[in-house]
Amino acid sequence: MARIVQKFGGTSVADMDHIRNAALRTKAERDAGNEVVVVVSAMSGVTNRLVDYVNSIGSLHDASEYDTVVSSGEQISSGLMALTLQDMGIPARSWLSWQIPIETDATHGKARIRRIVADEIAKRLGEGEVVVVAGFQGVSPDNRITTLGRGGSDISAVALAAALEAERCDIYTDVDGVYTCDPRIIASARKLDKITYEEMLEMASLGSKVLQTRSVEMAMNHRVCLQVRSSFDESPGTLVVDEDEVVEKEVVSGVTYSRDEAKITLVKVPDRPGVAASIFGPLADANINVDMIVQNVSDDGASTDVTFTVVQDDLDRAKAVLEERRDELAYAELVPDPNVAKISVIGVGMRSHVGVAQQMFSTLAENGINIQVISTSEIKVSVLIEEKFTEQALRALHTAYDLDAS
Amino acid sequence: MARIVQKFGGTSVADMDHIRNAALRTKAERDAGNEVVVVVSAMSGVTNRLVDYVNSIGSLHDASEYDTVVSSGEQISSGLMALTLQDMGIPARSWLSWQIPIETDATHGKARIRRIVADEIAKRLGEGEVVVVAGFQGVSPDNRITTLGRGGSDISAVALAAALEAERCDIYTDVDGVYTCDPRIIASARKLDKITYEEMLEMASLGSKVLQTRSVEMAMNHRVCLQVRSSFDESPGTLVVDEDEVVEKEVVSGVTYSRDEAKITLVKVPDRPGVAASIFGPLADANINVDMIVQNVSDDGASTDVTFTVVQDDLDRAKAVLEERRDELAYAELVPDPNVAKISVIGVGMRSHVGVAQQMFSTLAENGINIQVISTSEIKVSVLIEEKFTEQALRALHTAYDLDAS
Repeated sequence: MARIVQKFGGTSVADMDHIRNAALRTKAERDAGNEVVVVVSAMSGVTNRLVDYVNSIGSLHDASEYDTVVSSGEQISSGLMALTLQDMGIPARSWLSWQIPIETDATHGKARIRRIVADEIAKRLGEGEVVVVAGFQGVSPDNRITTLGRGGSDISAVALAAALEAERCDIYTDVDGVYTCDPRIIASARKLDKITYEEMLEMASLGSKVLQTRSVEMAMNHRVCLQVRSSFDESPGTLVVDEDEVVEKEVVSGVTYSRDEAKITLVKVPDRPGVAASIFGPLADANINVDMIVQNVSDDGASTDVTFTVVQDDLDRAKAVLEERRDELAYAELVPDPNVAKISVIGVGMRSHVGVAQQMFSTLAENGINIQVISTSEIKVSVLIEEKFTEQALRALHTAYDLDAS
Repeated sequence: MARIVQKFGGTSVADMDHIRNAALRTKAERDAGNEVVVVVSAMSGVTNRLVDYVNSIGSLHDASEYDTVVSSGEQISSGLMALTLQDMGIPARSWLSWQIPIETDATHGKARIRRIVADEIAKRLGEGEVVVVAGFQGVSPDNRITTLGRGGSDISAVALAAALEAERCDIYTDVDGVYTCDPRIIASARKLDKITYEEMLEMASLGSKVLQTRSVEMAMNHRVCLQVRSSFDESPGTLVVDEDEVVEKEVVSGVTYSRDEAKITLVKVPDRPGVAASIFGPLADANINVDMIVQNVSDDGASTDVTFTVVQDDLDRAKAVLEERRDELAYAELVPDPNVAKISVIGVGMRSHVGVAQQMFSTLAENGINIQVISTSEIKVSVLIEEKFTEQALRALHTAYDLDAS
């Protein structure tokens, strides 16, 4: 007997048929003798409709009222899931954040979980009851509903798995696992049986939409074994685990891309100490996240070109911040370029293998694709290229690293 | 300065435009220097959609999960109302039942309020904050959400008005007050400025849909001054008050009707002691509410005809219950008749005026309308007639009692 947390995303509980289908997954785990906690998102579309209501009132809104409105979607699906399980003859009840409670700080809209008082739900699990939890929400110190931000239900699930020392936390979604590359682009992409937390973390932050970074981080910190799997087919998904549980480490486990990048080049910035701080300080103050940065010495030796990337949504604001400081920064020209893509290869095996980055560079060169910016970490290499080469680059790299399904 | 409770029904908060319109009513009271509590229903249509979800799962459901699902509609509108008030520059916050708390018993689906802990919201009112309360809901002793049944938001509003000793409880709805008769049928119907609790109670139970019986009862018991008024126009509505506050009492203040009646006649029931009990006992056991009853002696002297009414939805069940006991009851024939209507005249003035019933009977006789059953109380006379005469009867009685607008 094991204790399992199952999390069903919005597409997995989209309507009553889907909820019934999800409930069958719960029934299967319970029939196998396991204790089951079910965490549900809102039915897909519901949260967006509620957010639209709030936004129609005004752009500045009280985040605590926003949370009161938006959290109701998960309240609805938790009740419907409990009723559906009961209809199958399975004892079940819904739990709202304030009923458990799942205590958070008061940062409405992106609250952090401080403590889960799991005694009562643990007791119920022991009695054979399925514990259905409304995801995405918590309760603040002053007794108001909070929400946990993007991917909040994943965070609820992982936090409950940690608090209940669950054997596994299954994230049910509309894909059946984590792939070596986006299968919509690379038909030969393979589903991975296992991936390490560190790799999943890089994948999540580098464009793979399967899991949110925060929930992977939390799983890693609490050593919660995650499984990404489909609610629409029975096959096992991808396990996200500790590095020492992956026996056959691949050098590279995946190739990811992000088209959500924009490049800015400041031409001929005077080359003096403190120039980087004077550029990136104001951007940070404006809450603009800068990703890749490269600085070249210009021909004349007295000035330098600075290139960096931001997410596309921040491009206009970043331009405005820098143009406001044009006199102070004394650059000759600001060249924005939204037509770029970031391609990354990821793998814990890089730590013990040399030549991974070199292989990436030469593969792209053989394909006539120019690299604009490079950034590396211990387990990944990212490059910025012209956006139109995205698919070509992914295909070439997927083959070069021997990732194609045989 | 006064303390006012405003309750907005589903049609008054049907969409964001309506919510803004309702919020303007709140602003007006506040600008006049009053402390305001706002009680909101769910946006119209929302509760029905949630109920449909629940019903699609199965006919037997856990009422506590039903309440968890269905109460979310009021949660949404309370948050949206608080945000809309804030957007108008008015300090406001939403309160869910468990946050106040509004404590109820554990009778899910039709819970009764036991206690409202009003200290914190009273303090907020004193600080100038508008207190927005999600109607229809409470919290049970074991910390689960309950709902208060039909007309639940009216009950929330009246209970809050009582707990906060409010000067008035305004029920905003889609009609502008209580009329002497249904204005859709009688064009000359007049809006009443005042009506007593007792009259309102009879009207509510006799077919007028403006207020639910339970909320009027509660208002009467706690001497809460109710006002029924429209959220769509500025005119004053109808005050529901204590009898001694109505200076000019009219003998008859209204004529109501209900088409939701069905008549059953048991022909030739043996006339012996206990026959009524043997008929109505099983109906009560089947949870069928019997309204008007009349018993005639038959020609032969040894048997009797028993006629009574039930609501139309219960007709088939009532027939089934009685047919099952045909041998025991030994009636000759069971004659059901759904084509009947109940017409009532209501007025506290009846207590001191004779001839009110007589005038009703003669007016109907003059119009050639046969009376099938009669039932009276201290302040009303009801008769059962053939349904097709409903409008004619209402019109004739409205004129006979001098209720037509001049």
